[in-house]
Amino acid sequence: MNDQDETAPPRTPTAVRPGESPSRRSFLRKVAGGTAGLAAAPALLSGTSRPALAGPADPANLPPNNPPWTTTAGYGVVEYPYGMPSPYEANVVRRNVDWLTADRIASISFTPLADLSGIITPNGVCFERHHGGCADINPDEHRLMIHGMVDRPLIFTMDELTRFPSVSRIHFLECPANGGMEWKGAQMTRLQYTHGMIHCCEWTGVPLSVLLDECGVKPGAKWILAEGADAAGNHRSIPMDKALDDALVAWGQNGERLRREQGYPIRLFLPGYEGNMSVKWLRRLEVGDKPWHSREETSRYTDLMADGKARKFTFMQEANSVITFPCPEKPIRQGPGLYHVSGLAWSGRGKIRRVDFSADGGNTWTPARLNEPVLSKCLTRFEIPWTWDGKDAFLQCRAIDETGYVQPSLPQLRAVRGTNSIYHKNSIYTWHVLPGGEVENVQIS
Amino acid sequence: MNDQDETAPPRTPTAVRPGESPSRRSFLRKVAGGTAGLAAAPALLSGTSRPALAGPADPANLPPNNPPWTTTAGYGVVEYPYGMPSPYEANVVRRNVDWLTADRIASISFTPLADLSGIITPNGVCFERHHGGCADINPDEHRLMIHGMVDRPLIFTMDELTRFPSVSRIHFLECPANGGMEWKGAQMTRLQYTHGMIHCCEWTGVPLSVLLDECGVKPGAKWILAEGADAAGNHRSIPMDKALDDALVAWGQNGERLRREQGYPIRLFLPGYEGNMSVKWLRRLEVGDKPWHSREETSRYTDLMADGKARKFTFMQEANSVITFPCPEKPIRQGPGLYHVSGLAWSGRGKIRRVDFSADGGNTWTPARLNEPVLSKCLTRFEIPWTWDGKDAFLQCRAIDETGYVQPSLPQLRAVRGTNSIYHKNSIYTWHVLPGGEVENVQIS
Repeated sequence: MNDQDETAPPRTPTAVRPGESPSRRSFLRKVAGGTAGLAAAPALLSGTSRPALAGPADPANLPPNNPPWTTTAGYGVVEYPYGMPSPYEANVVRRNVDWLTADRIASISFTPLADLSGIITPNGVCFERHHGGCADINPDEHRLMIHGMVDRPLIFTMDELTRFPSVSRIHFLECPANGGMEWKGAQMTRLQYTHGMIHCCEWTGVPLSVLLDECGVKPGAKWILAEGADAAGNHRSIPMDKALDDALVAWGQNGERLRREQGYPIRLFLPGYEGNMSVKWLRRLEVGDKPWHSREETSRYTDLMADGKARKFTFMQEANSVITFPCPEKPIRQGPGLYHVSGLAWSGRGKIRRVDFSADGGNTWTPARLNEPVLSKCLTRFEIPWTWDGKDAFLQCRAIDETGYVQPSLPQLRAVRGTNSIYHKNSIYTWHVLPGGEVENVQIS
Repeated sequence: MNDQDETAPPRTPTAVRPGESPSRRSFLRKVAGGTAGLAAAPALLSGTSRPALAGPADPANLPPNNPPWTTTAGYGVVEYPYGMPSPYEANVVRRNVDWLTADRIASISFTPLADLSGIITPNGVCFERHHGGCADINPDEHRLMIHGMVDRPLIFTMDELTRFPSVSRIHFLECPANGGMEWKGAQMTRLQYTHGMIHCCEWTGVPLSVLLDECGVKPGAKWILAEGADAAGNHRSIPMDKALDDALVAWGQNGERLRREQGYPIRLFLPGYEGNMSVKWLRRLEVGDKPWHSREETSRYTDLMADGKARKFTFMQEANSVITFPCPEKPIRQGPGLYHVSGLAWSGRGKIRRVDFSADGGNTWTPARLNEPVLSKCLTRFEIPWTWDGKDAFLQCRAIDETGYVQPSLPQLRAVRGTNSIYHKNSIYTWHVLPGGEVENVQIS
């Protein structure tokens, strides 16, 4: 990828329409090899067919004799009390786009999905969005107050909070603006920018229901205001049923304490709901009987429909998926042959039941293998073998969750939602594999 | 904890014996409060009893008005392309002990278990053991050769390896010397040193069975030599049945590429087997019909029995467990009352079925709650409420795995294994909670 991409505005749409070039018909012809590859897939996985994926044990294929690390002692254990990735992985970092927000401080950085494996996002590259910069809080001076319609308003120190019973859960967290730049047709040139406002970590904390029980919620209470201690004072209205279901007041992220960008020392965590509601740097929870209609749930984080009216309180992150190999940052560099297409699927409503793969722009679909364990409201890694014939191919994936919901195409989504929205765009993407192996983000309409 | 502990030799044993002081009888009297707390546990978890864990919403309990992070924009998204923990967590790091190995380069560092939550170990603090320092390999110059009793000896580049089908699995990896300094009775003064040679990550790689199938294993092949590219050239004999079962050639660790300390760019990963066999910086796999009897499986990583003979090829990490709160580094600082004891259990043979907790040195046991998901050959987090009466208490936990194996006491283990060993010490530990809330590692014999 060209580094200039990082600050460039998105390309104008590269749409593929039936009857135009490439026509649906030539398109199907082109991917005939891909379809054949799919048919052969189970045999390949079980090892009955062997593509030439490696060279023979010929000395000419060996690296230079005795590279330095084989002959000289390496660095010692005391040099990295807290370790960092290899310098050869220095490009696996969060990135932002300068033109997306008015400010580089209160902005967004994106997870480098193309370079990641499995489902855990390492803390160092989790995307972040903040509205007043990233707060740098001294945990000894931090408090959480719970008040409003409760029998016993309480203030908790960190020591008090971590004394409660805790649970650990692996969940994704996604900004509802993920992919939102493309509602009207702009096309981002990196997977990092099309889908990088998501991460998936193991979160540890006390169930919010336990804290509410400690305070005693009064009859008639229906909503909770969650407020952050950052300079923006982000605050959102949380439905009581979510608060009593699986909401956490979390202090742990992938085994260690939350990163500052993720709300250190504590954040609210609402599995499956839009990320902005999982209020970071959490300092206050007010129990009430109606929502507060804060800035972030009126002028922002609402869905502007075609008729000019805005839908409010659309909290759920519906089923979504994306192919992470191949992708714009990870083109096919070894020519035609067998590859294993890999990607991620997720749903705010529960578990992923199935992920379908298409190499012909959505005409034919084949189920991919899901990597176990498949967890609720969590990224699910899928993989499927695919033989590339070296010609144009149009790769898609679609997620089906345990409720039976099927991830829609972009035309299907626009038919319902129009093109005014920024948030909750979970439509199917198309990666156009070019004959040279490069991969472009295109639209099929 | 006193920082001097890091370089101090271990204390001499503090053994508690029935009939001596504290006697078994006075001991039981002392923990009566603890037993009562256990009986009340389910009610506490469901919220029908409310200990005073937090102050009222009194302005006097609030932090100073308007701490700086509430009034001033924080740092920006571009400042940390690869993020780091909060400076307030600077003590959560790997540590080594100077006296344990002859060399600080080719040595051991320990995972800071007392400060971690959940089951995922963040890559930055995963324990490491290396015998020739940590190799710093250029992945473009690295190759994996598979040869010996195969039809097609092959050499793989990294691009070729990552083109194979891959899986991701969450597994622990433990050095068999974990706790080994205590076979003869020495007692380490930190949880980090008693159990810190373990970590648990999501590992991504190609099943070794797929690569072996690619090469075609000849009839009669029973063992595989795995060799690292580091200066020590660590090499171990791997049974063919393990290689064909769940062994991985791994390049991913918690979503990103392996850390250098973990064998970047590739390592062998043998779930549930002693860590030294999961050869890091893997460069060669030789297929044969018998083991190689390398240095690391003869003069090291064998179990010297009481009769002076050594058991070889004792690969399995049997069921084990430890309490992480309270522990020497995390004493009880808030006085008598309700706490939630937390800890970790694991077994190289599969899933943890149950973890029992005792507050009276093993006289009475109560099952703890296991945090879901409970995965095979993976850390399992457990938690149990316990009311401390402010007196001496002797906390223990014991793991039972899905095969029915029960973690032994130290006397039980010594009766079978003697005291000559270094490796595979998985006996029950006792944390002595002192009246002031401090926690000591003691032995009950």
